[in-house]
Amino acid sequence: MNVIKSVRKMQSYSESIRKRGGKIGFVPTMGFFHEGHLSLMKEARKVADTVVVSIYVNPTQFGPKEDLSKYPRDFDRDLKMAGNVNVDCIFYPSDREMYPAHYQTYVDVEKVTRNLCGLSRPGHFRGVTTVCNKLFNIVKPHFAVFGKKDFQQFISIKRMVDDLNMDLEIIGYPTVREKDGLAMSSRNKYLSGDERQSALSLFKALKVAQKMYSAGEKKSASIITKAEKLIAKAPFTAIDYIKICDAETLKDIASVNDKTVMALAVKVGNTRLIDNHVFGEKLEK
Amino acid sequence: MNVIKSVRKMQSYSESIRKRGGKIGFVPTMGFFHEGHLSLMKEARKVADTVVVSIYVNPTQFGPKEDLSKYPRDFDRDLKMAGNVNVDCIFYPSDREMYPAHYQTYVDVEKVTRNLCGLSRPGHFRGVTTVCNKLFNIVKPHFAVFGKKDFQQFISIKRMVDDLNMDLEIIGYPTVREKDGLAMSSRNKYLSGDERQSALSLFKALKVAQKMYSAGEKKSASIITKAEKLIAKAPFTAIDYIKICDAETLKDIASVNDKTVMALAVKVGNTRLIDNHVFGEKLEK
Repeated sequence: MNVIKSVRKMQSYSESIRKRGGKIGFVPTMGFFHEGHLSLMKEARKVADTVVVSIYVNPTQFGPKEDLSKYPRDFDRDLKMAGNVNVDCIFYPSDREMYPAHYQTYVDVEKVTRNLCGLSRPGHFRGVTTVCNKLFNIVKPHFAVFGKKDFQQFISIKRMVDDLNMDLEIIGYPTVREKDGLAMSSRNKYLSGDERQSALSLFKALKVAQKMYSAGEKKSASIITKAEKLIAKAPFTAIDYIKICDAETLKDIASVNDKTVMALAVKVGNTRLIDNHVFGEKLEK
Repeated sequence: MNVIKSVRKMQSYSESIRKRGGKIGFVPTMGFFHEGHLSLMKEARKVADTVVVSIYVNPTQFGPKEDLSKYPRDFDRDLKMAGNVNVDCIFYPSDREMYPAHYQTYVDVEKVTRNLCGLSRPGHFRGVTTVCNKLFNIVKPHFAVFGKKDFQQFISIKRMVDDLNMDLEIIGYPTVREKDGLAMSSRNKYLSGDERQSALSLFKALKVAQKMYSAGEKKSASIITKAEKLIAKAPFTAIDYIKICDAETLKDIASVNDKTVMALAVKVGNTRLIDNHVFGEKLEK
């Protein structure tokens, strides 16, 4: 497995693959891998003959009071795990390589980034779309695979790629869950045992929402109220938002249908967790 | 000569050239060609075996009160002129192709776009960098050639390409001037005979500035005052700005050196003209 740290070297690696007609599948990550990441890598392997994974904790997507400095990192462990699923190349740049002195360019997707997490994390998605734009220009993939756990991120990046005519395909992969339903996330590591138990209320709320919808309830407000009660009852929880939105525009929507998404962000202790469910799709552990 | 109107077709045209190892030189334009444009196309020919020119009057770089609707256009004439300098392909998209419904992504280069024309044309450079970002993703060039007449545009695009790791080289080409020194511009067409005469004051001011600098004057303020007087004396002129800036950061600078640029924007009648000169470079007709 190659480990490349320089932008120029990564570009010429990818260019040589493209020239011989190879297809590049790309999984951008912030490292500290779990089963969710590995699933994305395996998915990339299905559509491409070369799989590139980036490991980069991108500072521009963290707010000043967020967990940038303590975000979990374990490069050696990540390397082994990526090797086990036959990743061909790890792109592992430094901050200096990604944001040299006088850096000043940002990519902003204006509408879909403003609701949901955009409300409580201003600038977050600008950081995400900017770094992904850079990574796509560096890795030059034919496909990039993103987990749908970060639904708004997935939609924002798809939108950026379409709008800016970036010549690659964005593939969304269903949320990978623990046996009890908790969505996998590197941030789950922060949870104490009791918090971990409370965190299950996010999945339970989505389950109840789907059940209400299947039983004929179409009013977003009713479903949201039920979910709020369920989550508020769990200890250590503080709801940031629970919303039902159009799954493409991410605008709030009053009446649920198969193309709407229920998205939620909840602080459990000090850890902010997100989860979501599109009503027309399966919700499985 | 190929004329391509669709993004997808342009991308596959360029991809096939790249795959066979060909080099693509690109000249983005708003059409209504003059000698300046043709020089850029010839320059592209020097470094590339395939020359692509885009003709697109980009609405997102015009302010609400600017001359978008009356910007001069003559596609058939442009086609002939491009053919005469052996352009291989014209990319000629519609607004709908470039900015479909729900379009919402913008690329902003934050610092170098804020001074000079950025002061009187807010949003202009955001439109320029966004459309160039799109065009680079569509045409996939190895080289793109820009005239240095639009100096701030040239600097902003170089900055964007560097910052976003776009894998192409930006080439700046010296301003092409009429015999009497007037910088070539599609907008010169708007000038009456008398205005055309007054418009020469821009070039004259740059000449005088260079002369003062060569004679040992290093104070920006003194040079600017002299230039202001010269231009104000010409009929029909209204100065937007005359500034001396660092030629890379475009920050105002009090003391002139070889790496500083004198940039000016002047309305002559209803026509806004720009011109510039880097003190360390030649200033020729």
